[in-house]
Amino acid sequence: MKLTIVIHCADQIGIISAVTHFLHKKGGNVVYLDQHVDTETNVFFMRIECEFDNGFNKTNFDIDFNSQLGNSYNMQWSSHAQNVKPKMAIFVSKYNHCLYDLLSRYNSGELAVEIPFIISNHDDLAYIPQQFDVPFYHIPVSKESKYLAESKQLELLKKHQIDFIVLARYMQIVSTKLINEYPNRIINIHHSFLPAFAGAKPYHAAFKRGVKIIGATSHYVTEELDAGPIIEQGVTRVTHSHSIKDFITKGKDLEKIVLSTAVKLHIDRKTMVCNNKTLVFS
Amino acid sequence: MKLTIVIHCADQIGIISAVTHFLHKKGGNVVYLDQHVDTETNVFFMRIECEFDNGFNKTNFDIDFNSQLGNSYNMQWSSHAQNVKPKMAIFVSKYNHCLYDLLSRYNSGELAVEIPFIISNHDDLAYIPQQFDVPFYHIPVSKESKYLAESKQLELLKKHQIDFIVLARYMQIVSTKLINEYPNRIINIHHSFLPAFAGAKPYHAAFKRGVKIIGATSHYVTEELDAGPIIEQGVTRVTHSHSIKDFITKGKDLEKIVLSTAVKLHIDRKTMVCNNKTLVFS
Amino acid sequence: MKLTIVIHCADQIGIISAVTHFLHKKGGNVVYLDQHVDTETNVFFMRIECEFDNGFNKTNFDIDFNSQLGNSYNMQWSSHAQNVKPKMAIFVSKYNHCLYDLLSRYNSGELAVEIPFIISNHDDLAYIPQQFDVPFYHIPVSKESKYLAESKQLELLKKHQIDFIVLARYMQIVSTKLINEYPNRIINIHHSFLPAFAGAKPYHAAFKRGVKIIGATSHYVTEELDAGPIIEQGVTRVTHSHSIKDFITKGKDLEKIVLSTAVKLHIDRKTMVCNNKTLVFS
Amino acid sequence: MKLTIVIHCADQIGIISAVTHFLHKKGGNVVYLDQHVDTETNVFFMRIECEFDNGFNKTNFDIDFNSQLGNSYNMQWSSHAQNVKPKMAIFVSKYNHCLYDLLSRYNSGELAVEIPFIISNHDDLAYIPQQFDVPFYHIPVSKESKYLAESKQLELLKKHQIDFIVLARYMQIVSTKLINEYPNRIINIHHSFLPAFAGAKPYHAAFKRGVKIIGATSHYVTEELDAGPIIEQGVTRVTHSHSIKDFITKGKDLEKIVLSTAVKLHIDRKTMVCNNKTLVFS
Repeated sequence: MKLTIVIHCADQIGIISAVTHFLHKKGGNVVYLDQHVDTETNVFFMRIECEFDNGFNKTNFDIDFNSQLGNSYNMQWSSHAQNVKPKMAIFVSKYNHCLYDLLSRYNSGELAVEIPFIISNHDDLAYIPQQFDVPFYHIPVSKESKYLAESKQLELLKKHQIDFIVLARYMQIVSTKLINEYPNRIINIHHSFLPAFAGAKPYHAAFKRGVKIIGATSHYVTEELDAGPIIEQGVTRVTHSHSIKDFITKGKDLEKIVLSTAVKLHIDRKTMVCNNKTLVFS
Repeated sequence: MKLTIVIHCADQIGIISAVTHFLHKKGGNVVYLDQHVDTETNVFFMRIECEFDNGFNKTNFDIDFNSQLGNSYNMQWSSHAQNVKPKMAIFVSKYNHCLYDLLSRYNSGELAVEIPFIISNHDDLAYIPQQFDVPFYHIPVSKESKYLAESKQLELLKKHQIDFIVLARYMQIVSTKLINEYPNRIINIHHSFLPAFAGAKPYHAAFKRGVKIIGATSHYVTEELDAGPIIEQGVTRVTHSHSIKDFITKGKDLEKIVLSTAVKLHIDRKTMVCNNKTLVFS
Repeated sequence: MKLTIVIHCADQIGIISAVTHFLHKKGGNVVYLDQHVDTETNVFFMRIECEFDNGFNKTNFDIDFNSQLGNSYNMQWSSHAQNVKPKMAIFVSKYNHCLYDLLSRYNSGELAVEIPFIISNHDDLAYIPQQFDVPFYHIPVSKESKYLAESKQLELLKKHQIDFIVLARYMQIVSTKLINEYPNRIINIHHSFLPAFAGAKPYHAAFKRGVKIIGATSHYVTEELDAGPIIEQGVTRVTHSHSIKDFITKGKDLEKIVLSTAVKLHIDRKTMVCNNKTLVFS
Repeated sequence: MKLTIVIHCADQIGIISAVTHFLHKKGGNVVYLDQHVDTETNVFFMRIECEFDNGFNKTNFDIDFNSQLGNSYNMQWSSHAQNVKPKMAIFVSKYNHCLYDLLSRYNSGELAVEIPFIISNHDDLAYIPQQFDVPFYHIPVSKESKYLAESKQLELLKKHQIDFIVLARYMQIVSTKLINEYPNRIINIHHSFLPAFAGAKPYHAAFKRGVKIIGATSHYVTEELDAGPIIEQGVTRVTHSHSIKDFITKGKDLEKIVLSTAVKLHIDRKTMVCNNKTLVFS
C-alpha cells in the first residue's frame, strides 16, 4: 500500500524531522521525499511517497496526522492512496491532436485516470470519443448561450465528481465561476512559449517576429488569460524556410507532448502551486 | 580561390538559371547554393559559394556580374573572397563571459576575423584584452558625456574601417546615429528568449513568471529596443529549485554560445535580413 | 501544378545551370532548390520544387528531361506530382503508441498518404485499425511459418502497389527478400540513440550504463540490424531517479515523434541515400 | 555557516527521520534534502544542506554525528563547510577550448575552487596558464617516459593536496595507479555521446555513421576506457551538410559546457557514485 502525502505550511525548523518521525512510528517506509522552501513567501512544501504494510488504515492515519502534525504546524495537507484513480474531464473544440494523444495514452494504461466524459462546443470530433468508447457531450457555446452552456458543464462535472479538467485546445475562455470551482485543477495548453505570444494566433505572431524557436506551454487556468502557473514548456527549432503552416504542424507535436506531460505530473500529484508559480517535483 | 556571393532582388522567373549559367561561363564551380523567396514581399534571396581557378580576377568578375546580371535583374548583391577577414569591434561593459568566449575562439582561429580593438564604458575588464594582446579603449558613458563618447566610438570605428560591431553584454543603448552607420551590422546578445522579457532584468522577470525554460537571443540592433531581426536563439531548462542567481549562471552559458553562433553566421555571410527578420542559410 | 524533382549523378561542373535552364525553358518557376555534393564519393544530389501552369504535361516533361539532361549527365532522377499520394503499409506488433500517432496524423490530413492496410504478427491491436477504418491483416510469424508469412506479406504489398513500408515497432527482423524489394523504402524506428544500444532491450542497456540522455532513431532498413541510413533522431534527458519503466514511457514519446518526422520527410521526398547515410533536405 | 552532508549506507527504515532529528537537535535548519534508494543494490543515498548559527563547531558535530548515527547505521558519510574551496588540478594537451572555458569561469568566481597548477604533456598551451597567472608544468609523456612522467604528476598532486583532477581534453590514458589514488575524483570529457563512439576519433566515426545528433560526455575515469560513471551529457543537431570539421567545431561548444557542468556538480558535491553510475542531485 503506497501513500502520497503533500504538505505546505509556513517554514519552521524541524518539520522534516517531525513528519518523517511520525511516518516511521506509523510503520511507513519513505521511498521518495522532496521538499522546497519558497524564500520569498517563507512557505515550506513537501511531497512524500511512503509504503505501508497491508494492515494500513488510511482513515486512522489521516486523523492521527492531523492531530499530531497538521494542527500544530498549521499545515495544508492531503494524503492519496496510489491505487485510487482521479477523474478527468476533457474539453475540446475542433483540433484533434491533443485529444487523440490523451486518449491513446489512456487506452494503453499510461494515464492512471478515469475519463467520465468529453465535452466540446462543436460536434466535429464526436467520432473520436466514440472510437474510444468515452461518453461525449456536445454543448454549443455562443454569446447568448454562454451562461446556459456553463451551467450544463458544471452540472456534468459535479454529477461525475470530476477531480480536474483538461482543456485540450478548447479555444474558449472559461468562466470565473468554473475557475473558482476548480482552482489549480484546470490544465490548459497554450500554443506558444509563454509569456511570449499570449492570446490569439500565437504561431502567426511568432512567424511575424521571426523567432528561431517556437514553444508550447501548459499551465493552470486563472482569471487572467494565459497567465496562470506554468506546469511544463517545450520548444522546437524553426527556420526562415518554415511557413506559418509548418509552425502549426511542428507546434502540434509540442502541444500534445507538453500537455500530456503536465497531465501526468498533475495525476501523480507532483505539482504544487505557490505565488502563481508551480513547484514540479519530478 | 573561393567566392561567396549574396544576392537579393524582386523575385523573377529564371534568376537561378541566369546566375548559375553566368558562373559556369566564368569557369566557376558552385559548391553550395541556397535560395529563398519571401512570399510576403516577393523578394528573392540567394547565397552561393563558388570555386574558381587561380587565374581568377575578382575586379573583372564584379564588373561583368554587374553588367550582365546585377543591372538587368536590379539586384542588391556583393561578392566576398573567403580569405579576406572582416574587421570586428567588440563593445563590453562589466560581464566577462561573452568577451572571454569570443577572444578564446578568436585566439584559436575559430573566428576568421580581425579584432582591431575592444571598447568598454568601464575599465573593469581592461585586463582581458591585455591577456589577449588586443587594444582596449575605455570610453566612459554618462548622461552628460554620451554624445562625446559616441563621437569617440565612431572615430575609432571609422579609423579602423570596422565591418561590424559585437555588443558582448554592453548594457548600454546605442544611438540611432551608430545604428544607421552600421545597419544590420551591430550584433547584440539579449539575455532572454525574445520577445519574452525584453528590456532590463529579464532573468528576474523570468523567475517571477515561473517559466520552465529560459533563453538567450542574438539579434541585429535596430532603433526599437530588443526588437531587431533575430539571428539565433538558445534555451535551457530551469526548475522551481533554481534561484535567480542560478538563472543568471545558466544563462551565461546560453549567452556566450548563442552570441558566438550568431557572430560566426555573420562572418560567413550566412545571414540576410528581410522585413525585420533574418534568413539564416546554415 | 507543382512538381518535385530529385536527381543524383557524378558531380560535374554546370549541372545546376543546365537543370535550372531546362526548367526555365519549360516555363517552370523554381520555388525551392537544394543541392549537395558528397565529397567522398563525388556524387551530386539535387532536389527541386517547381511550379508549372495548368497546361503542363508530365509525360512530355519526363521524356524531354531524359533526352536533354538525364542521358547526357547520366542521372538517376525521378519527378513527382505533388497531388499524387504514395501508398504506405504499416507493420506493427503489440505496442500501440506509434500506430496511434501515425493513424491520428493520417486521419487529420497531416500525412499525405494512402494506407491500404496494416499488418501485424499479433492480433492484439486489431481494434485500432478498426477504429480508423483501415484494413487489418493478422499474419502470425513463428520459426516455422516465417517463410509463408513473408510470402503473404509480399503478396499484399504487391497487390496494393505499396510504395513504402513503416515498421511501427514491428519487433521482427524483416527478411533480405523484403529489404531487396523495397530498398530505402522500409522505415524502422529503433528505441535508442543509435549506434548506441543496437539490438534488443535498448532501454535496459541504457539504464544499466547510466546515461543521462536517451534517444530514438528512425532509419531505412538494411540487411545489417539497426545499421541502415539514419533519417532522424531525437533525445530526452533522464536522471538517476528514473526507473527502466520511466525510460520506456519517456522513450515512447520520442519514438512516435521521431518516426512520424521520418515518415513525413520520406513522403515529401526530402531524403536521399548516399553511402549508407541520408541527406535530409529540410 | 552552511554545511553539506553526504551519506550512503544500506537502506534501513527510519534513516531520514534519524538524521533530520539529529540535525534539528544540533540547531541546524535543513534548507535542502535529496535522497535516493538504489533498488538493485538496496543502498540509500542522501545529500543535505543545513544552516547553523555562528557558534557552530564542526569538529564536535562530526564526532557526535559519527557516534550517534554513523556507527549505528554503518554509514559512509562526510560533511563539508561551504566556504572551504576544494583544490582542482587541470591536465591538458593541445586543445584550448575547455581550458579557456574553465579558467574564465574560475577567473570570474563562478567555480569555487583553487587551481594550484595545470599540467600538460605539451607546451603549446603554456601561454594560457600564464594569461591567468596559474602555475604550469610541462611534463612530456612518451612510451619511455610514461612511468617517470606519472611519478612527477603524482608528486605535484600530493604536494599541493589536490582534491580532484580535471582532464580538459588531455588525450592521454591515465594510469591505474593514478585512478586508484583518486577514485571518482578524476573527471574526463569525451567527445561523443557515450557509449556510442568510445575511443579515438569519435567525430570521424559519427560522421561516417551519418548520425543526426552528436554529443559529449563527462564521466569519472575508471580503468576501462570511456566506461566510467557518466556525470553529464549534452547533444546538438548536425546535418548531411556538416563536414567532420563542422562536427569538431560544434562539438567543442558541447565539450566545454558539459565538462564545466560536471565540474560544478562535483564541486558542489551533488554527485554520488553507485554501481558504476552517478546520482546527480541537481
